[in-house]
Amino acid sequence: MLAEFSVVPLGKGDSVSEYVAECMKIVDSSGVNYRMNPMGTVLEGDYDLVMALVRKCHMRVLEMSTRVITSVKIDDRKGPKATLDSKIKSVERIMGKELKK
Amino acid sequence: MLAEFSVVPLGKGDSVSEYVAECMKIVDSSGVNYRMNPMGTVLEGDYDLVMALVRKCHMRVLEMSTRVITSVKIDDRKGPKATLDSKIKSVERIMGKELKK
Amino acid sequence: MLAEFSVVPLGKGDSVSEYVAECMKIVDSSGVNYRMNPMGTVLEGDYDLVMALVRKCHMRVLEMSTRVITSVKIDDRKGPKATLDSKIKSVERIMGKELKK
Amino acid sequence: MLAEFSVVPLGKGDSVSEYVAECMKIVDSSGVNYRMNPMGTVLEGDYDLVMALVRKCHMRVLEMSTRVITSVKIDDRKGPKATLDSKIKSVERIMGKELKK
Repeated sequence: MLAEFSVVPLGKGDSVSEYVAECMKIVDSSGVNYRMNPMGTVLEGDYDLVMALVRKCHMRVLEMSTRVITSVKIDDRKGPKATLDSKIKSVERIMGKELKK
Repeated sequence: MLAEFSVVPLGKGDSVSEYVAECMKIVDSSGVNYRMNPMGTVLEGDYDLVMALVRKCHMRVLEMSTRVITSVKIDDRKGPKATLDSKIKSVERIMGKELKK
Repeated sequence: MLAEFSVVPLGKGDSVSEYVAECMKIVDSSGVNYRMNPMGTVLEGDYDLVMALVRKCHMRVLEMSTRVITSVKIDDRKGPKATLDSKIKSVERIMGKELKK
Repeated sequence: MLAEFSVVPLGKGDSVSEYVAECMKIVDSSGVNYRMNPMGTVLEGDYDLVMALVRKCHMRVLEMSTRVITSVKIDDRKGPKATLDSKIKSVERIMGKELKK
């Protein structure tokens, strides 16, 4: 399945890059396939694998702050799984055009 | 902590009440404190308790369909925990007015 | 249509009730039908009416802070419109049971 | 500001690529800077410009179906604006490492 998530600390100033970097260290070293975008990170893998990674990031940012908002959106299906590339490719095929990623 | 979630099957027709009802059976019989609203359900409890309930609902709706979009927004903090009532009450106190819930 | 939204300032401390109260003043005095829940507020009305209200709240909180995260989830359909009560009632009818709201 | 959005029709089958392609035609021809990811599209621009584009996509997919769920997450700040690249670059700078995008 695919899941996009973001973890944001409240009350830690305007810039949250330092906290996002802590999450991205966890994600990047996990071996789970991912793509980072300006508003979140999309993970590819089984439900439990992906949600364990989200939990780790949430707990890490909560350690560093006092209040955390974590958002997760899961897109899961039976049978052949969507991958990080397949959903975008399928839209580009219909449009006959490459899109900005 | 508090977490709002919703589980939506794709490709199952316009009306998804039947699927929401399956989730609400799981939630309502779980013993976890909750409030349902027109766009989702807010759960109150520890991270692992709440996320196990979201997982159960996700898996139940995936059994009944072929593709599921599950959204979760978590609000977690250290120290005294927010409850289902305390956040709204604290806003009403500032406003000096009761709001529609 | 129905739309749930929340507006959160970053860097303004842990507690954001003061900012939520500013939004709820705007919502409560707008005449638009709404229900507040612990994680957001659900509005009922036409797309442009609802989105104008979300814009007002976003701009008000941005005036009071330097960075704002606003989330909106819209559920819109053709034909007979869902209301704040109809979606929950339809789930309760299937379950034959009243749920916590 | 930056805003990520997605538009999903209910009851139109498992695959929604056709509908996403309709949105991406609108986005790609709008002149507004964007990045598509597997779970949504991030737009860069002023509030009204960005939200007008989201409205167009929502209305287009509602024309083609009977029920639509549209999600928008806005990240807006005063002063120097974040761009599609600046947020990721700032995290990569802290980590001293390039991430997968």
